[in-house]
Amino acid sequence: MKLGDGVEAAIHCATALAALEDGAVMPGAALAEFHGLSPSYLVKHLNAMVGAGLVHSIPGRNGGYRLAKTPDAITLLDIVLAVEGPGFAFQCQEIRRRGPNPLPEEVFSSPCGIKLAMLRAERAYRAALAETTLASIIEDHVSTADSRVMQRGCAFLDLHQRPQST
Amino acid sequence: MKLGDGVEAAIHCATALAALEDGAVMPGAALAEFHGLSPSYLVKHLNAMVGAGLVHSIPGRNGGYRLAKTPDAITLLDIVLAVEGPGFAFQCQEIRRRGPNPLPEEVFSSPCGIKLAMLRAERAYRAALAETTLASIIEDHVSTADSRVMQRGCAFLDLHQRPQST
Repeated sequence: MKLGDGVEAAIHCATALAALEDGAVMPGAALAEFHGLSPSYLVKHLNAMVGAGLVHSIPGRNGGYRLAKTPDAITLLDIVLAVEGPGFAFQCQEIRRRGPNPLPEEVFSSPCGIKLAMLRAERAYRAALAETTLASIIEDHVSTADSRVMQRGCAFLDLHQRPQST
Repeated sequence: MKLGDGVEAAIHCATALAALEDGAVMPGAALAEFHGLSPSYLVKHLNAMVGAGLVHSIPGRNGGYRLAKTPDAITLLDIVLAVEGPGFAFQCQEIRRRGPNPLPEEVFSSPCGIKLAMLRAERAYRAALAETTLASIIEDHVSTADSRVMQRGCAFLDLHQRPQST
């Protein structure tokens, strides 16, 4: 099972955006710099979160990104689905219908048990992701991170955040 | 999240192998024909299951594949890990360490909370896959499948299975 590395970038960015002052935005270039990522790489994943309604993109010279919801209303599942797309990882190709001596469609009216079992497991994965909010990620981070990590992060955000322009 | 389509093929093949008579094997070409797949595509996934100790490959003119364990001792997790590899889908790139003003290694001694949460969800996925055995997949199939599907499957297996040659 593979998950694109955009998921990690998107979650880190959402966490950073959650730390902005009320009404402030952060330019994509600053988010990229803070995470050591190329802006062109990151914008794709930021826009995926915009498209999913998790993040607002404020245009203009003083524009940037900010969360569209409070951190307790954004879960890891929201971000994973925004970046990776809503489809399940297991894509049933209905290979049970193939092979020699084709049978009429109606004999396959019951769903394939293999598909059902694979999707049941994915629902367990999604349920676990849905249990973790951005707020809880931040709470854990604040209580466990070294103070120098926190200081570096706050200093960077203070320097690069912009009052909301719209 | 993406899962290779080899997973579906491998689970279907394992299910077919579970239906062989005691000691019999099924050639890879027959497994491919039964599932409407190319033999060269399928052999890669069959060999992955051989490598994981789920399937035996019996060489020679009358050789083929058979399960290496009873169907109640093989889970969907075993097959998914055999085909997809043992690594987690979420590959933490430790991007928290990047960016401006690098900090010394020791400040990152606590694991990243994002990584922990993502792997917690994957463990829930794996636990759900581990709950489903090949035996339960077969039991469901026998009790729900149309009788024509069963007849077609049994006829094909009867025709193509070979008594074990070793």
